[in-house]
Amino acid sequence: MELKIQLKESDIPRQWYNLAADLPTPLLPPLGPDGKPIGPEMLAPVFPMNLIEQEVSAERWIDIPEEILGILYRWRPAPLKRAVYLEKFLDTPAKIYYKDESYSPPGSHKPNTAVPQAWYNKQFGIENLTTETGAGQWGSALAFACKIVGLGCKVFMVRISFDQKPFRKTMMQVWGADCIASPSNQTNAGRKILEEMPDTPGSLGIAISEAIEAAVTDPTGKTRYTLGSVLNHVLLHQTIIGLEAKKQLELAGEKLPDVVIGCAGGGSNFAGLAFPFVADKINGADITIIPVEPESCPTMTRGPFAYDFGDTACTTPLLAMYTLGHAFIPPPIHAGGLRYHGMAPLVCQAIVEGLLKPRAYHQIKCYEAALTWASTEGAICAPETSHAVAAVIDEAIKAKEEGKEKVILLNYSGHGLMDLSGYDAYMAGKLIDYELPQQDLEKFTAPLNQLPKAEMRKTGKW
Amino acid sequence: MELKIQLKESDIPRQWYNLAADLPTPLLPPLGPDGKPIGPEMLAPVFPMNLIEQEVSAERWIDIPEEILGILYRWRPAPLKRAVYLEKFLDTPAKIYYKDESYSPPGSHKPNTAVPQAWYNKQFGIENLTTETGAGQWGSALAFACKIVGLGCKVFMVRISFDQKPFRKTMMQVWGADCIASPSNQTNAGRKILEEMPDTPGSLGIAISEAIEAAVTDPTGKTRYTLGSVLNHVLLHQTIIGLEAKKQLELAGEKLPDVVIGCAGGGSNFAGLAFPFVADKINGADITIIPVEPESCPTMTRGPFAYDFGDTACTTPLLAMYTLGHAFIPPPIHAGGLRYHGMAPLVCQAIVEGLLKPRAYHQIKCYEAALTWASTEGAICAPETSHAVAAVIDEAIKAKEEGKEKVILLNYSGHGLMDLSGYDAYMAGKLIDYELPQQDLEKFTAPLNQLPKAEMRKTGKW
Repeated sequence: MELKIQLKESDIPRQWYNLAADLPTPLLPPLGPDGKPIGPEMLAPVFPMNLIEQEVSAERWIDIPEEILGILYRWRPAPLKRAVYLEKFLDTPAKIYYKDESYSPPGSHKPNTAVPQAWYNKQFGIENLTTETGAGQWGSALAFACKIVGLGCKVFMVRISFDQKPFRKTMMQVWGADCIASPSNQTNAGRKILEEMPDTPGSLGIAISEAIEAAVTDPTGKTRYTLGSVLNHVLLHQTIIGLEAKKQLELAGEKLPDVVIGCAGGGSNFAGLAFPFVADKINGADITIIPVEPESCPTMTRGPFAYDFGDTACTTPLLAMYTLGHAFIPPPIHAGGLRYHGMAPLVCQAIVEGLLKPRAYHQIKCYEAALTWASTEGAICAPETSHAVAAVIDEAIKAKEEGKEKVILLNYSGHGLMDLSGYDAYMAGKLIDYELPQQDLEKFTAPLNQLPKAEMRKTGKW
Repeated sequence: MELKIQLKESDIPRQWYNLAADLPTPLLPPLGPDGKPIGPEMLAPVFPMNLIEQEVSAERWIDIPEEILGILYRWRPAPLKRAVYLEKFLDTPAKIYYKDESYSPPGSHKPNTAVPQAWYNKQFGIENLTTETGAGQWGSALAFACKIVGLGCKVFMVRISFDQKPFRKTMMQVWGADCIASPSNQTNAGRKILEEMPDTPGSLGIAISEAIEAAVTDPTGKTRYTLGSVLNHVLLHQTIIGLEAKKQLELAGEKLPDVVIGCAGGGSNFAGLAFPFVADKINGADITIIPVEPESCPTMTRGPFAYDFGDTACTTPLLAMYTLGHAFIPPPIHAGGLRYHGMAPLVCQAIVEGLLKPRAYHQIKCYEAALTWASTEGAICAPETSHAVAAVIDEAIKAKEEGKEKVILLNYSGHGLMDLSGYDAYMAGKLIDYELPQQDLEKFTAPLNQLPKAEMRKTGKW
C-alpha cells in the first residue's frame, strides 16, 4: 500500500463546494449598523464585487477559474498521507489519514484562498490588498499570492506573534509585502488601542479593524481588504482540500471517514476539509466531525451563539456566530491563528444544527501531541495544527478502546518551522495553560445583549 | 502537461549508484598519518563496519534495505517539477526541471543519507551518534533520523550558524538531539581553538574535529561519528535523487538533460543528483554538469588538487581533493552548508577528469536569484540552493542567447524557511561579498606541500 495518495494535476477539483446550498436551515444574514440585513453593495468598499457574489452565493458548486488552478499547481493537488507510524506507536486499529497542506510555499493551507482572493481582486481592477495576520500564516500566504498575481500587499500582524516570530516578517518581505505590528500608529483604530493599552499583545480583532480602515480610507479607491478565514467565500475556496481528500480516500479504497478533525480559529482549514463531508452527513452518513479550539479561547465550546462584530473596533457587519465578545483579547498562546473571539458563521450554523462536535484542548497537551507526531511521522506541525493532532491521538486511542477499525481524517494544516519558539518554551517547561475564568467570559459576552438576538435554528435531525 | 512529475512509492529506486565503479581513473586512496593508504579497519573507531564497506566498495549498485525505504517513504519519492513560471519570466526556450528535496521533514536532501547512516549504525549495535553541522540542515536531518531509528544524537553546530539560526537548535531538540555551538568546551579540539581564537565564527573543519573526538573518546565504545557530506558512502546514499530524476525525466518525455546543476559545499546534494548523469557522460552523452560554490570559499575553482585533512585538527585521514587548506576558515556567508575547505574526493576526481565544470558565485547575486525564484516559482530556497538557482538562471539566459531548447536539471536541495536572516540582511542591503585574496589562498594552501602529493590522473577524454 502506498502511504502517500497522490492526485494528478488533471484530477484537481474544478469547482468549489458551497455548504450554504445544503445547510438544513439557512444562515442568519449579516446585519448592518441599523440592525437590518445588509445588501451586497454595502460590502463594496471592503471587497470586490466578484468576491461579494461568492460570499452571498447559494449555488452548491462554483467553478474555479483555470488561471487560479494554474497558480495552485505549484503545490496542489496536495498529498493525502497515511500516518502508519503514528498508528503503530499508538497500537490502534484506527487508520489515520492526513491531508498535508504544509507543501504550499508559505507552508499552510492559507494560499488556497489567498490566491483566488488576490486573483479576483486583480480581475476587478484592484491594485493593493490589506489584511491582518495572527501567527503569520495568513499574512505570508497573502504576500505570496499578491506577488504571484501582481498586487501590492500590506499586512497588520498581531504584536505578540510579530515579536515571537521575527522571521515571518522577512518571509512576507521576500514576497514584496509590507508587514506592520498591530496595533500600529498607521490607523485611528490602532492609535486608539495603543493609547488605552500601550502594552497590549494585540489580537486578530484589532488587526482586522486596522486592515479594514487602511483599505477603505485609501483615496485612490484601488485598495481592498482580505480576510484569511471566517467569511463564506474564504471557506468556499478551502473546500478544495476536502474535495481532493474525497477522491484520494476513494483511491485508497476507503468509503467515507468515521471521524474528520481540523483545528479551528476562524474556521477555514477545518471547513475546507470538513464541509464536503458535512454534506455527506446531511445526506445521512454517520461521521463525527470535530473542530478543535484552544481552551484559552473557547469560542465554540463556551461562547454564546449571538450576533457580534468580527473585529474589535466594531467596523464589520454583525455576524451570527459563537463568540467570546468582540472585546475579548485571547491570552498569548503560541497558536496565534486560533486567537480569535468569533468563528465562521457557516461553521457555527453547522454546530447549532448538531452536525459538528467542537472540542477544546490546552496548549501543553497539544505540544505533547506535536512531539509524538514529530517522533513518529517525522514532521514538525504548526501550533494550530497540533490541536487537531491531539484530537486525532485521542480518537485513535478511543478506537483502540472500542476495538473499532475507524478511519480518521485529519487536516494537517501547516508546518511549524516558522513557529519553533513555542516548541522551545514547551520543552523548557515554560508554557502556561490559560483557563478562561467564567466571570471574564460573562464580562466579555454581556454587551452582546445590547445587539440584535441571533435565533438558534435547528432541525433536530442531528 | 503536469508540472509535478510524481513517482509511486513502488517506483522508488531500490539500489544506490556508486560512481567509483565507473570512474575512468580510480580514486586516490585515503592516507594515514604515515602517508600510507589506510585499511578499512583503521576507520573502525569512527564508523561502523557496514558503512565502511560501502565507503570502500567498488560495486556499481548497492541494494537499499527495505527498512530504510520504509523510512524514506515519509517524503520520497520526491517530486520532479517543471519551473514553467521561471521559464516564462526569463523568456527562455530552455526547459527547467528541478528535483524538490525540500519536502523532507527537516527540509533538505540531507535525510537521504542521515536515515541510512543511522540505520546501519543501529544494525551494528551503536547507541549514539555525533556529528557537525554548518547551516543546520545536516544536524537536523541526523536528529530526525536518530529519533526515527532510535539512537542518541549530539550535534556540534558551527557558531556563526548557531547564532544566526537560533531555531535550528529547537528543531534538533524537538527530535531529541543535543545541539552545541562549536568550538565548544566539550572537546580538546574545541578548547584549543577557543584559546587561540575566542571570537572565531567556527567552521565545519573545527566542528568535524570536535564531533570525531566526542565519538572516539566515548568509553562505552557505543558512539560513532557521522558525516553529512564528502565521503563516498554519503554521496552514494544521495544518488537516490538522480536515479528518481532519471525515471521522472523519462515520464516527462525527456531524454537526458543538457545541463545538470547543484550547489556544492562538501558535494553530497550535487553528487546525489549528478552522478547517475555523470555515468551517462562517461558513456558518451553530451551533458554539461556544473557544481556551484561560493566565491568566498572557492574550493573547486581556485584550490589546488592535493592531499589534505578533512578537518581543522588534522584528525581525519588525508583525502585527495581540491582544497583551500584545512586551516582555512571561510568568511561568515549565510550559506553555512557551503563553508567547507575541501570537497568530496569523488566529485574532485570527476573534476580532474574534466567531467564536471565547477563555477563560483558571490552571495549577493545568489540572493537576487533566490528572490527571482520566490517571485516566480513561489518557494523560498535555502541560501545554499540559491547558488544553484543563480547558475540555472544564467544557463537559461544562455540558452535563450543561443536559441537552444535545452533541458536544464536543478537540484532544489532545500527550503530557506530556517535561514531567513540571510534574506533579511540581503533586503536591508547589509550583505557583503567576500573575495578570497590570492595571498590568503597561498598562505592556507602552502602547508599542503608538506603532505604527500596527489597525482592528477586524467584520461583526456573530456
